[in-house]
Amino acid sequence: MHRTKVRVAEGALDANDTIARANRDDFDRAGVAVVNMMSAPGAGKTTLLERTIGSLDGIRLGVLEGDVQGSLDSDRIADLHVPVTQINTDPGFGGECHLDANMVRSAIPAVSLDDIDLLVVENVGNLVCPAEFRIGEDARVMVCSVTEGEDKPLKYPLMFRTCELVVINKIDLLPHLEFDLERLLANLDAVNPGVARLSVSARTGEGIEPWVEWLATVPERAGAAAAA
Amino acid sequence: MHRTKVRVAEGALDANDTIARANRDDFDRAGVAVVNMMSAPGAGKTTLLERTIGSLDGIRLGVLEGDVQGSLDSDRIADLHVPVTQINTDPGFGGECHLDANMVRSAIPAVSLDDIDLLVVENVGNLVCPAEFRIGEDARVMVCSVTEGEDKPLKYPLMFRTCELVVINKIDLLPHLEFDLERLLANLDAVNPGVARLSVSARTGEGIEPWVEWLATVPERAGAAAAA
Repeated sequence: MHRTKVRVAEGALDANDTIARANRDDFDRAGVAVVNMMSAPGAGKTTLLERTIGSLDGIRLGVLEGDVQGSLDSDRIADLHVPVTQINTDPGFGGECHLDANMVRSAIPAVSLDDIDLLVVENVGNLVCPAEFRIGEDARVMVCSVTEGEDKPLKYPLMFRTCELVVINKIDLLPHLEFDLERLLANLDAVNPGVARLSVSARTGEGIEPWVEWLATVPERAGAAAAA
Repeated sequence: MHRTKVRVAEGALDANDTIARANRDDFDRAGVAVVNMMSAPGAGKTTLLERTIGSLDGIRLGVLEGDVQGSLDSDRIADLHVPVTQINTDPGFGGECHLDANMVRSAIPAVSLDDIDLLVVENVGNLVCPAEFRIGEDARVMVCSVTEGEDKPLKYPLMFRTCELVVINKIDLLPHLEFDLERLLANLDAVNPGVARLSVSARTGEGIEPWVEWLATVPERAGAAAAA
């Protein structure tokens, strides 16, 4: 029974990859680089984006928001005059706990690809399934909060293994937590040795500059990859 | 295509409910009450359980740990000499983001039901799918951390709607956060009006007593329900 289930899952993931490639082709044609941003619920993805907007000199940003229900985060982004598109996984897709390539594909017509250089996709808050579905992205970023404890890379290894950058957020709270940053980094290296990592406080702005610099390199790298 | 998908999902949930009832019959026969404990990753379920153990006078506790990989949490519980059984959803079940009735069923033979009165099932850290799968529990508890923000009930309504108690954890951090507890409670009432709620700090022990008292009533209430 489990074997059958795994085969069905593999078929679904193959189909997802095919659609992800179609998304990627659309993004490449429009010259838009795409970042898939993932985290547990409440790790601070939206606050980090709010901090980022305005610092991305010369790069036109768009945001695609993935949520089970509602538009709380896209409302926050729209308030900052950034073009934002909402995907709700509940009414259209049965309450899915992640974005997949098909959901992103269905949203592409609503995204003004001609008006942006970089599309950040804020995935549904979840450390498991979002990592299993490529959506046509150029890069994956994972935001983890120091309030979640040091053990998360060991408990959700696929998520930490499939991203190119780990942003460690809420470092302003470190003085108030029993949190061992070195232990988190060691656990991170145990599942994804040497992966790029940055420590930030989206609330205070500490460490935001290297994050913005990293983000600004994505369109450049994506352009080189598309031309190759 | 979406319609087909929804139908398939409904069939799977019906099958899950049938197995959940079989689990429930086994638990009832053994006189064991079961609590399904759910939260986002890092909300503090295990720390809350560590605090709880030892305070549950006269009630023999057992724990069933659900994790994608590893046994970090069950090791912590075993250190406190509480019988604990680990379910990993990765090797056996393909990396599932939740426990379902069949996974719990497969673990029941390893749980010494005769030696316990109350089984707490620590679900996989995730605010979406665990809420969709009953496992044969008598009660559902949701742990949410104040570090996750006030908006979580609105973004993950099913989770907050299907639980009988919401434990608001990490209140020791409130002085260091821009967090409006009243707003969280209003959002909670918007999706599950009047649901029982308790504020605790699993780290400092603040507010633990009412939580332990609530937990102690579950075997009593489950016994009455089973006899009815």
